Amino acid sequence: MHTDPIPEPILRRLPRYYDTLKHLRASGQETVSTTVLAEAFPDVHPTQIRKDLAVTGIQGRPKVGFSITDLLAAIETFLHWNNQSEAFLVGAGSLATALLGDPGLWQTGIKVVAAFDNSPRKIGTEIRGIRVLSMDKFENLARRMRIPIGILTAPGFAAQDCADRMVKAGMRAIWNLTPVNLVVPEGTIVEHVDLFASLAVLGRKLREQQ
Amino acid sequence: MHTDPIPEPILRRLPRYYDTLKHLRASGQETVSTTVLAEAFPDVHPTQIRKDLAVTGIQGRPKVGFSITDLLAAIETFLHWNNQSEAFLVGAGSLATALLGDPGLWQTGIKVVAAFDNSPRKIGTEIRGIRVLSMDKFENLARRMRIPIGILTAPGFAAQDCADRMVKAGMRAIWNLTPVNLVVPEGTIVEHVDLFASLAVLGRKLREQQ
Repeated sequence: MHTDPIPEPILRRLPRYYDTLKHLRASGQETVSTTVLAEAFPDVHPTQIRKDLAVTGIQGRPKVGFSITDLLAAIETFLHWNNQSEAFLVGAGSLATALLGDPGLWQTGIKVVAAFDNSPRKIGTEIRGIRVLSMDKFENLARRMRIPIGILTAPGFAAQDCADRMVKAGMRAIWNLTPVNLVVPEGTIVEHVDLFASLAVLGRKLREQQ
Repeated sequence: MHTDPIPEPILRRLPRYYDTLKHLRASGQETVSTTVLAEAFPDVHPTQIRKDLAVTGIQGRPKVGFSITDLLAAIETFLHWNNQSEAFLVGAGSLATALLGDPGLWQTGIKVVAAFDNSPRKIGTEIRGIRVLSMDKFENLARRMRIPIGILTAPGFAAQDCADRMVKAGMRAIWNLTPVNLVVPEGTIVEHVDLFASLAVLGRKLREQQ
């Protein structure tokens, strides 16, 4: 197992190579060179692609390139997709539906095992095959199942409270999709995606250009 | 009109203050001090909140604080919410549904006027009141209506092609919600939100901690 921290940009690019390699294999190809791969990634320098693939530990062969099947397996192993971490999702709204329906989700190596909501209208339903449970059961289940990850898609006003409950339930990482900057104890990992903040920035840049 | 670029963190925080102010007003309050506001934002220093509000040009009164109504109006004007930019959305999937149903969207001052998709199953339907049109009509309509913003929620493999079409249609800014790093001409504004990349980073950090 790799213990050195891998640079984030590489972690972000590997799933993109993976998708392209899947497409190449589906179209009948068995091997691929970094030169060919580079054509699909005009934003990444071929040397960088070579370095990125090297972190998975796989070697290409001169003039032949990489076996696509081996490369796919190496990326899967490297990113621990075959050793998934479990997550609970809080806030069973339309963003939850979008996330749970996206093939990008399982590729991150994270498996959502249950969703939680306060709304009686949602409790007992399913989103993309994932059961929606009452928030009353959240801490108890999370602790019993030792779930390490909380995915936060609740409304902004409830975000800090949900995060506090995740921390109390022993969760070590929170994927925060609300606009709120969460306050969490040191050591708790938070990745924050503030969707509309980036759109607001875009709008502002556009107006400044005028 | 403000022409100096405003620091992005301020642009990201103002909509959060706005939400809280709305809640305060709904609960019957007419004025607010930065001290009270600070309680709702444990992650922002009160001095910073004061500075943030100052960019909108509004003045608080000693011992009284801000008129909530005036402050809401000042933020609206400052962020040009009352002077919306129009956008076309490409890719009418579940992420589009989540975005179009989120009150955060209009607060960014950006108004989605139409959605586009290739799928005959989706063309002619509506998402949250927004009509889904065929991609065949995209460039023509975008140019005729002088739409400045493209919102990209298409699948990754189609992303660069859609972005090229947005640029050709004269769009000046792209909100990219795909995993693809787009290649665009200089001067085109791109804000990229790579959802699952941040989740992959979270998963990796979690495993490194173990």
